Amino acid sequence: MVAVMQPSSLEHLIQLFARLPGLGPRSARRLVLHLIKQRTALMRPLAAQLTTVLDNIHVCSACGNVDVQDPCQICRDPRRQRTLMCVVADVADLWALERAGIFRGQYHVLGGILSAIDGVAPEDLRLEQLARRTAGDNVQEVILALGATVEGQTTAHYIADQLQAGGIKISRLAHGVPVGGELDYLDEGTLTAAMNARQAL
Amino acid sequence: MVAVMQPSSLEHLIQLFARLPGLGPRSARRLVLHLIKQRTALMRPLAAQLTTVLDNIHVCSACGNVDVQDPCQICRDPRRQRTLMCVVADVADLWALERAGIFRGQYHVLGGILSAIDGVAPEDLRLEQLARRTAGDNVQEVILALGATVEGQTTAHYIADQLQAGGIKISRLAHGVPVGGELDYLDEGTLTAAMNARQAL
Repeated sequence: MVAVMQPSSLEHLIQLFARLPGLGPRSARRLVLHLIKQRTALMRPLAAQLTTVLDNIHVCSACGNVDVQDPCQICRDPRRQRTLMCVVADVADLWALERAGIFRGQYHVLGGILSAIDGVAPEDLRLEQLARRTAGDNVQEVILALGATVEGQTTAHYIADQLQAGGIKISRLAHGVPVGGELDYLDEGTLTAAMNARQAL
Repeated sequence: MVAVMQPSSLEHLIQLFARLPGLGPRSARRLVLHLIKQRTALMRPLAAQLTTVLDNIHVCSACGNVDVQDPCQICRDPRRQRTLMCVVADVADLWALERAGIFRGQYHVLGGILSAIDGVAPEDLRLEQLARRTAGDNVQEVILALGATVEGQTTAHYIADQLQAGGIKISRLAHGVPVGGELDYLDEGTLTAAMNARQAL
């Protein structure tokens, strides 16, 4: 007996949702059925907003942030210090630091961290752009705001080695970042303390 | 100092995702950043497929299933028994039964279960349609395939009371030990039900 399954267009939508982080086939199915129930209130706005973001959001060619303009709002802001650059793994980390409101320099988003297990090599990160920016942009200090994980620290040391030759001051966030923790999950107080107590590397 | 937050169009998209079941603001943010990273491979197909489903998927006016046609494939299938009707809370339950491939009658999707806490009253469910279908469609047996929760059982009793007058046979799924389940992990209610409904071997 052949079971009648869900229509293929629904099945395809469920499979796409199941590829998102934190979701699996079962939660994706539940989510799609919820969307169909809330067709007007939720599904239609979500489809429209996805298209809007697709059309309007760009990755900043300078720092790797996402914004409606390129260069992004932060890179364009004349009030932000040009001599200070904060290197983060991901845009979520940049947002976390901006929420804390304690940093008024430039950012550089790597797009990940070095990881042998996940197969992330130096050429997969925006390291060349970082070298170019720190060489040209009159940067005096680079703050490596990477997670206090083995991979985060490996990435920090790799970058420090690369930039040391340029005579730039290199610092990292103070210990205060819980070992094993990720930036995105930290409260603002911890982020502030870590930023203020940054140490030369 | 005013912190630079994420652009408003991104913020809006994150808020929409955060309203989906099982997601919150933080997981929605993570999910949206993942989508932006995977713009071509994931975000564009997802936006397109949401629009496709919005345009093509209908709720079956007879049973409440979702399908590309109305009435749905199951209601149209001439090989399925018209005398047997299985009442389920949600489309996900219908799909679960279809995957099992053990039922070849009609379905009726309630669209929820009665719940004082969530404010779901009889008029919020497709109960009138159920009464009309069981009165008109020559239905001989109604199987109440609702969850073995307090609310599921309350809903089952409510429906049984409503339909009893029509002289239709009403049944519910058996309670017992799940296949593959270990006794040690079962609650007392399930064990009691399984013991009381024990069968000769």
